[in-house]
Amino acid sequence: MSQTAVADFGLIGLAVMGQNLILNGADKGFTVCAFNRTVSKVDNFMDNEAKGKSIVGAHSVEEFVAKLKKPRVAILLVKAGPAVDSFVEMLLPHLEEGDIIVDGGNSHYPDTTRRCEDLAKKGILFVGSGVSGGEEGARHGPSLMPGGNPAAWPRIKPIFQSLAAKAGKDEPCCDWVGEQGAGHYVKMVHNGIEYGDMQLICETYDILKRGLGLSVDEIASIFEQWNKGKLDSFLIEITRDVLRFKADDGKSMVEKILDAAGQKGTGKWTGQNALEMGTPVTLISEAVFARSLSSLKGERVRASEKLAGPTAKFTGDKQQFLNDLEDALYASKIISYAQGFMLMREAAKEYGWKLNNAGIALMWRGGCIIRSVFLKDITEAFREDPKLESILFHPFFRDAIHKAQGGWRRVVSQAALLGIPTPATSTGLAFYDGYRSSVLPAGLLQAQRDYFGAHTFRVLPDEANETFPADKDIHINWTGRGGNVSASTYIA
Amino acid sequence: MSQTAVADFGLIGLAVMGQNLILNGADKGFTVCAFNRTVSKVDNFMDNEAKGKSIVGAHSVEEFVAKLKKPRVAILLVKAGPAVDSFVEMLLPHLEEGDIIVDGGNSHYPDTTRRCEDLAKKGILFVGSGVSGGEEGARHGPSLMPGGNPAAWPRIKPIFQSLAAKAGKDEPCCDWVGEQGAGHYVKMVHNGIEYGDMQLICETYDILKRGLGLSVDEIASIFEQWNKGKLDSFLIEITRDVLRFKADDGKSMVEKILDAAGQKGTGKWTGQNALEMGTPVTLISEAVFARSLSSLKGERVRASEKLAGPTAKFTGDKQQFLNDLEDALYASKIISYAQGFMLMREAAKEYGWKLNNAGIALMWRGGCIIRSVFLKDITEAFREDPKLESILFHPFFRDAIHKAQGGWRRVVSQAALLGIPTPATSTGLAFYDGYRSSVLPAGLLQAQRDYFGAHTFRVLPDEANETFPADKDIHINWTGRGGNVSASTYIA
Repeated sequence: MSQTAVADFGLIGLAVMGQNLILNGADKGFTVCAFNRTVSKVDNFMDNEAKGKSIVGAHSVEEFVAKLKKPRVAILLVKAGPAVDSFVEMLLPHLEEGDIIVDGGNSHYPDTTRRCEDLAKKGILFVGSGVSGGEEGARHGPSLMPGGNPAAWPRIKPIFQSLAAKAGKDEPCCDWVGEQGAGHYVKMVHNGIEYGDMQLICETYDILKRGLGLSVDEIASIFEQWNKGKLDSFLIEITRDVLRFKADDGKSMVEKILDAAGQKGTGKWTGQNALEMGTPVTLISEAVFARSLSSLKGERVRASEKLAGPTAKFTGDKQQFLNDLEDALYASKIISYAQGFMLMREAAKEYGWKLNNAGIALMWRGGCIIRSVFLKDITEAFREDPKLESILFHPFFRDAIHKAQGGWRRVVSQAALLGIPTPATSTGLAFYDGYRSSVLPAGLLQAQRDYFGAHTFRVLPDEANETFPADKDIHINWTGRGGNVSASTYIA
Repeated sequence: MSQTAVADFGLIGLAVMGQNLILNGADKGFTVCAFNRTVSKVDNFMDNEAKGKSIVGAHSVEEFVAKLKKPRVAILLVKAGPAVDSFVEMLLPHLEEGDIIVDGGNSHYPDTTRRCEDLAKKGILFVGSGVSGGEEGARHGPSLMPGGNPAAWPRIKPIFQSLAAKAGKDEPCCDWVGEQGAGHYVKMVHNGIEYGDMQLICETYDILKRGLGLSVDEIASIFEQWNKGKLDSFLIEITRDVLRFKADDGKSMVEKILDAAGQKGTGKWTGQNALEMGTPVTLISEAVFARSLSSLKGERVRASEKLAGPTAKFTGDKQQFLNDLEDALYASKIISYAQGFMLMREAAKEYGWKLNNAGIALMWRGGCIIRSVFLKDITEAFREDPKLESILFHPFFRDAIHKAQGGWRRVVSQAALLGIPTPATSTGLAFYDGYRSSVLPAGLLQAQRDYFGAHTFRVLPDEANETFPADKDIHINWTGRGGNVSASTYIA
C-alpha cells in the first residue's frame, strides 16, 4: 500500500458516524484516510461504501499518519472516555509539532480542557468538536462545534465548514466556539436542550392522548400541522413520522415500545453543571429526571396499582385547547433555550471563554437534532444585539411569550387537574414567573436560615438604616426581640 | 497544666457549634477536652462558658491527645474540606491503634469514604457524622448521623446517644447509619430535604401574599394554626416566629430582607448525586435552583420591567383555598421525603451500604432542622415494614396523599393562572402523576432516539413477537417502511 501523504484529513473510528463523515468528506472533494482498531472494518469499508471514492484505507497508525498531508489532521470518532486517550497515545509518537488531533465524540468538556493543555505542551494542537445530526447529519452535513487550541482553526476551518450543514443563505453550521473544552461544552448544552425539547413533545403527546383522548393518528396530524408554523423543526417532523409508523399488525409502532428512556450522560452533565454554576437550568434537569422516572417501569406499575389520580375529565373547547398546547410547547421551548444560553453565559464567565451566541445559534440551526426555524430567530436576536442578556429580553421572544402565556397557563393548570405529568412544561412556567418577579419569597428563606443557623442575611437597599446597614451581613437574635446585629461563624 | 487522661472525648473547633456540643457533653456528665487552632479561643472559652464545668482545655495537639482516655475519641468540628485533612494529619503522630477520629462537619461523603479507608490502614477508626440542629441543637441535643468504621460504634455510642436529642419515649435521635461515607450521605440528603421544605414554605407564603393579598401578620397566624396539625414541625414554627418579628420601625422584618438566598453545597450535592444515580429527586433540585434564581436579583429586576404576567386575580373561596394550600404543602412534603428515601435506597445499592430507614427517620425526628410530627409517621411506617419500597406505598401516606391531592391540584392550577412561581410544589405533583403512571410517553422518546441516532429500544412484553422479540435491543429504519431489525453502534 502507498505511504504517500495524499489525504486532506484522516478519521479513526469506522462506526456509522465515522463512515458517514468520511463519505461526506469525499463528496465535498477531500481525500480522506480511514482507520479503525479492528482492521477488518477498514477493508470492509474500502470494499463497499468507500469504493470508487477519494478515500484511502490504513491498516496501522503508522500508515494512517503517513498518509496525511502536513500539518496533519486526525479526527477521532471513538467512544468518549479512555478510548480517546488511548488513541492520542498511539498517534503521538508519529506526529510532528503543529499537527492536529480532533476529538469528535461526546467527551466531557473538562477532559477536553485537560487534553488541550497536555498536548499543547507537546506542540500538538488538540480540538474537541461537538458533532450532531446523527447518521444522516454526518452523511450529508452535521452541525459541528469545534473548540480547543485556536491555532488549529485556520487549518481545519475549510474542512469543517465544508463538511457542515448549511443554513439560510448557504451559511455553514460550524464556527469556532472557543478555547479549551468550549466546543464540547456547547455540544453538552445542545444535547441538554435536545433532552428538553423531546420531553416537552412527550408531555404534549401525553396530554393529547390521555387528556383529550385522541388517537395516535390524530396526534400525528396535529404535529404535522404544527410543523408548518412556529414549531417547525426536525424533532416535530420526526414525531409526526414516528407516530405514523405502523407495525406489521397495522397498529401504531409507538404504542408497542417500552416506555423506559435511556440516556448517554450529556443531559445529566448539563444538569450537574447547572447546579455547580448555580444557574437555574430547570427545564433540562426535569427532562433528565423524567427519563430516570420512566426507567423505573416496574416500580411505576406497582405504584399505579396503589396510587389513585383525579377523576376529572377535560370538558373545555378542544380546538382552543389544541392552540393552547401549541403555545405551551412554544413558550416552554423559549424558556429552555433562554436557560441554556444563560448557562453558557455563566460558563463563559467561569472558564474565561468568549462565546459567540449568534454563532452558536447558527451552528444549531441546521444539521443537528434541535435544528429549527426557531434557531433562526435566536441567531437574528443575537446578531442584532450580541450582548443580549437573555433571549427573553429581545422584543421578538418577549412578544412571543406574552402572546403564548395565556394558553401555556391553561395547559399547566389543566394538566394538574387532569393528573397528567408535565414536569418540563410546568417548570418552564415556574421559571418564567420567578424570573419576572422583582421580589421572590427568598427573604423569608434567608430569615429562616439566619434563625436556625445564624447564616446571616442582607437587607434590601431601600430598607437599610443604622441598625441594618446595606452591604453588611446581618444576624438577628430571632428568638428574643430586637436587632442583635452580629455575624456568626456557623459550620455544620 | 495536667497531662492526665481525664477526658471521655475531645473536641477540636471552638466555633459556636463546637462550644455548644462541648457544653452539651458536660451537661450529660462527660469530661470533655477542648482545643482550637487559635489557642486564645480555648482560654476565652475556659474562662467564660466552660467555667466550673467538667471541661478541660488544651493548648496543643499533644496536650489534647494526652488528656483523652483510651481508646481516644477526637471529634472535629471544623470547616469541611482541607481543614479536616490537616487536623487528621496533626493528630495522627500522637494517636494509637484503635483511637477514633470523628468528623462532625458537613463533609462531602466521598471524602469521608476516602478518609475511612486511608485511616483504617493506619489502625485509626474514622467516623463521619452528620450533625444537625444548628446552635440550639448542638447545645441541648442535636440529631447525630454517624457512619464510617463500624468498629468505632461501641465506643462512641454511649457518648453520641447521650448528646443527641430524644424523641418519643426517650429514644435518642442517633443510631449507626452505615459504613464509609454513609453518615455524611444521609446528612446530605437531610440537608437537601431541608432545602425542599423551606422552598415549599416560601412558595406557600408567596401565594398567600401575592395571590390572596394577605398581610404578613395574617400569614403568621395561618402558619401558627398549621403548626398544630399535620404540618407540625420546627420549620413551620420558626416561619411563624420570623413572620411575627418586627423591625424597630414596627414593620415586618421579613419584608426588609434581600430576597437572594445563599447555599452551602449540600443541596447542590444532593441534586448532582440524584442526577448521577438516575433517581428523580426533582423537588430538592427545584429548591436548589429556586435559590439560584433568587440570587440573580439584578437580572430579575430588569426582567420584571420587560416581562408581563397574567392579569387574573383569585376569585374563589378563600377559606377553601387556605385548606387547599395546607394540603398542597403536606402532599408536596410527602413527595419530597419519598424522593429522598428513594435516593438513599439507590445509594445503598450503589455503595453497598445497609441503611436502616426507620433509624434514619428517627434520627431526623428530633434535634434537627427538619424535625416534625411527620417523621414520626415515617418512622412507624418503616418499623412496620422495613422493606417498604416507597413511603407512598404505606397506607398512611397513600391515604394522606389521596385526601390531599384535590387541594394540591387546585393550588398548582391556580398558581399557574395567577402567575406565582411554585416550582417545588408543581414538580412534586408532576412526580406523583408520573410515578403512578404505569405507562408514560417515554415510548415516543425512545422512538425519536432510535429514529435519529439508532439508539435502539425495547418492546413492551405484551407486544413482543418474532419481528420484535422481547429483551432484545431493536432498531427500525423509520424513514422507510418495515421492520428493519438491527442494533447499531452509535457514538456521537
